[in-house]
Order: sequence, then structure tokens, then C-alpha cells
Amino acid sequence: MILVVGSVALDTIKTPFGKVERFLGGSAVHFAVAASILGQVGIVGVVGADFDDSFTAQLKRKGIDVEGLQKVSGKTFHWEGFYEYDMNQAHTVKTELGVFQNFQPEIPDKYKPASIVFLANIDPDLQLKVVESLKKPQLIVGDTMNYWIENKKEKLIEVIRRSDIMLMNDGEARQMFNTPNIVKAAKRIMTLGPKVVIIKKGEHGGIMFTPDTMFVAPAFPLDEVVDPTGAGDSFAGGFVSFLSRDLRLSDENLRKAIIFGTVIASFTVSDFGSRALYNLQYAEIKQRYAKLMKYTQFGKI
Amino acid sequence: MILVVGSVALDTIKTPFGKVERFLGGSAVHFAVAASILGQVGIVGVVGADFDDSFTAQLKRKGIDVEGLQKVSGKTFHWEGFYEYDMNQAHTVKTELGVFQNFQPEIPDKYKPASIVFLANIDPDLQLKVVESLKKPQLIVGDTMNYWIENKKEKLIEVIRRSDIMLMNDGEARQMFNTPNIVKAAKRIMTLGPKVVIIKKGEHGGIMFTPDTMFVAPAFPLDEVVDPTGAGDSFAGGFVSFLSRDLRLSDENLRKAIIFGTVIASFTVSDFGSRALYNLQYAEIKQRYAKLMKYTQFGKI
Repeated sequence: MILVVGSVALDTIKTPFGKVERFLGGSAVHFAVAASILGQVGIVGVVGADFDDSFTAQLKRKGIDVEGLQKVSGKTFHWEGFYEYDMNQAHTVKTELGVFQNFQPEIPDKYKPASIVFLANIDPDLQLKVVESLKKPQLIVGDTMNYWIENKKEKLIEVIRRSDIMLMNDGEARQMFNTPNIVKAAKRIMTLGPKVVIIKKGEHGGIMFTPDTMFVAPAFPLDEVVDPTGAGDSFAGGFVSFLSRDLRLSDENLRKAIIFGTVIASFTVSDFGSRALYNLQYAEIKQRYAKLMKYTQFGKI
Repeated sequence: MILVVGSVALDTIKTPFGKVERFLGGSAVHFAVAASILGQVGIVGVVGADFDDSFTAQLKRKGIDVEGLQKVSGKTFHWEGFYEYDMNQAHTVKTELGVFQNFQPEIPDKYKPASIVFLANIDPDLQLKVVESLKKPQLIVGDTMNYWIENKKEKLIEVIRRSDIMLMNDGEARQMFNTPNIVKAAKRIMTLGPKVVIIKKGEHGGIMFTPDTMFVAPAFPLDEVVDPTGAGDSFAGGFVSFLSRDLRLSDENLRKAIIFGTVIASFTVSDFGSRALYNLQYAEIKQRYAKLMKYTQFGKI
């Protein structure tokens, strides 16, 4: 099982292509929906009394186990934001943490033997508690966000030490290690412990670092992005989903997993939230994967 | 012969790695030095009385024909700038156009049969005059900059129409076609006439568009960039240099040429100006090319 712990939110999003209100979102959701494509996913998060059963039903439809989704009195985490001309830049109108503010992850017993855990961008203290409560995770994948770099750097370093694979976006990695150079930043992360470091660069793809090599991954070129919200978590979900098949961290398998995640994220951004993934067929994924291969190959000189 | 028309400058550059004063630069120079790696290059530009013979000697050392380099009374174009923490952002201290302000390209007779011409980012009116004065160029490669998009858009469109291959950086392409999406912008450029459009994204690589396909090109990941000045022109020089071997615009050959240019630019930014290219061996280029191949390959799923 793939266990994910993170935020579950209701998002109100406006982009040049339209608007959705109180749409199912949050890092744990975007990850879980993508990860469910090839994996068995259990989600741990908290929602309020306003979280409609139809949202839970959406997750179940993707085969996601929702036993770890606590429902408490209060309001569900609500983010409202918009994108303008530049779809890389989210503008926040308001963030209402609601019940997420006092979130204490509770891992159902049946999740404890999970072989893979994805620590979405929550408080590093909570990320560590989750790791402690698992029986024997074979693969710990960590993520974070700028807020924790600024406010809980030492605890975050502890999370990085415990992670087998660490994901960070380029801005965060630069900020954390005070260097504009992402190759340098990634090498610094590696020295803390992870076997694999992936620097996400949004529409510019990403770079994977391992002790032996690098992999410069493209993004899938799109001529229309409807809503980029959740693209990073969706990438992570696709990536972990692919690895969940056999847990091999060989360079070859990791590269495939990254391209798989890239392709999933390219579908995600073509509609609001993770809606595009609900009816996505495996044949479509394979087709786009093959296209990206064609778009990036070049011969020897 | 590859003919290049553009600026020849003396640059004063400060980066976190040091400082150079009145260092040989300008778009035509950066292009020419890179293009001379595999091609026969003739340069057309203007310099002032302060342009030391040692600079001309530098160009000659690379086998560049300098008959088209007019020397007139006045001062050579001088740019002074610096880079700080973020090496992607050049900060201009001053720009003294000097003799470049009234530059009128004069093409020596022996350059007129040139099979390839690179129109660096000068006034579109001058770019068009250069094209008119050539006998029968087989390959016209155009470039530009934001100033001409803002001030001479119609003439620039004329240049694009005349170009077989158009280069633009991502910001320029977005600005010109008023869209944040570079795939859309590139398609708009294609409709104007070029068979090939290359959108340059600096440290994020680039994308090539042809009527049939796309090529998402990586940048070479570097953990140290000493001076990014001229990287775009150096890329163009390496790219055109490779194409000059047989002028084939097949998808396969274009992709190789783009990676060749990418590798050349990766050497360029490892030292000030184009200094790194003076003693560069072909074996080093091949080696880095092969590395980039390894860094980008992935298997089927």
C-alpha cells in the first residue's frame, strides 16, 4: 500500500479558462488520485463537517482507501486563489486553515504495514510522527514547502535525513541551501541522506540526482494549461505509483517513473483540480509517454 | 561561409566569480567564435578607434574573417553590467552605443555568396538590408530582442517571414504574441514562414518546432556558471556551425545541431565572454555531448 499524509482541501480557483468553487483539492488528494492509477492508496488527512459525502465518494471511485480521513467538527481547509496571464504564478485570495490547523495524523492500523509513504508538504514534526508510527516502510518519499524551510528548518532536515527520495521544487531548494544553483543545492540534499533527489521545475520539467548520475527530465509541452493547481503533487503521485509496482530504485526504473509522473501531471493541468485523471485510460498515458520519448530523443555525433 | 551581422562590443562584467573590463563581446562575436568551431565565418560589424588590434587578432586566431569589421572614428559599443545571486538576471549599469548607433552593415563582396547568414539581434531594417545584399543564401537564421518587438514589430515580422530558422527566447516569444504559452507562440511564428522555430529558455534548455514535430531540448546541468553573457548567441553559433557541415534540415540533423549548440553554450558560460571556447578541443565537445545523451535518455513503458 501507498500511504499519503497531507492536506485535504476545498479549493476555489479562477483561471483564464474558468472558475470552480469548493472543488476537491489539497496535496494529499492530488497525490492520491494520481498514485491510484497503478497503486493501492490509503489517505490520511482531516476534513470538517462541511466535507460532503460526494467528495469521499470521488476518492473511493478511484479505489482510494479513506479510513484515514478524519471528519471533525469545524470547517475544511479552504484555499481561494487565481491565475492570470502567467499560469506559473498562483495568487492567493485567502487561506482558511480550518480543521487543518490542529491536524494530528492518525494512522489506521491497517495502513501501518504500508511499504511506501509519501509525506506531503505538512509540518515536519507531523511528517516525522507519521514515519515513526509505520511498521517497516520500504520507501519514504518526502516533500515540503517554503513555509517549513523558513520556520522549521532543523526538523525539516530531520525529515530529509529519513527520506529515501526527497522532492523539492527549484525555488525551495535554492532557498534552503542559499544558492541559485540547483545542481549544488541537490548535491547538498544528497549529503543529508536521500538516495534520490528530485528537483521539480514546473513547466521546465525537473532533474533527478542519484549518487551515480543525473537525469534531466523534460516537461510535456502543452499548448493549453487550464489549471496548474496540484501539478507537483500529481507528478509525485504518478512517480510513486509507477515505483509501487516493484520498488526498484534502479536508475532505469526511476527515470521511467519520473516520465510517468510527468505525463500524469500533464493530464492533470489540462482541467481543474485532478478531474482529468478520473476517466484517464492507461492507453492514453502510454501514448503520451511515447510521444514525450519522441520529443526528446537525439542521435550521436 | 557563415556570415554573421551584429554587435561587436567591449563588455565590463562583474559576477560573483570575478570581473573583466572591456572584454571582447557582442552578439556577433559570441556567435562567430562558437560558429568557427566547425564553420568558416565572416563577421560584419562596426568598432571604434579604441578597438585594439589584439581583439581583431583574437577573432583571427579562431579563423574568423574580419574583412567585414569596419573601424570608424568614435568609441566601440560598451556594455557594463553585473550578475548577482541569480545568474539568470543581468543588471545593466550602462550602455554606450558609440559607433554602433549609426551602424550600417557593409557586406564585403567575398561574403556575398555566403550560404548561411545569421542575423543577430540588430535593427530589423538592417537585418533585411543584409538579406537583400546576399547573392543566394541557402539558410537564413534570424534572431531578435525585446527592443525590436516593442519598437519595430512590423519590420521584425518581415524578418521572420524571410527567415528559414527563427530563434527567440521564451520571454520575447511570449511578449510578441501576447500569450504566456510558448507552444502557442511558436506556432504563431511558424505561420509567418520559418520552417523551424527555436524557443530558447536559458538554463532550462529550449524547444524546437517544425511542421512535423517538436524537440524538447535540455540544458546541460552545470554546478558552476561563471558568466552567462553571450550564452544565447553562443548556442546559435554552435547550432549553425553544426548545420553548416551539410545544410540538411532533417529533424535528426536539427536535433543534433541543437544539442551541439547547447554543449558549446555550456562551455561558454564556464568562463567570461567566449574565452572558454578558444582552447576547446573537439574531443571535449563530443564527450559532453555524450554525457548529455546519458543524462536525458529513458526507456519505454
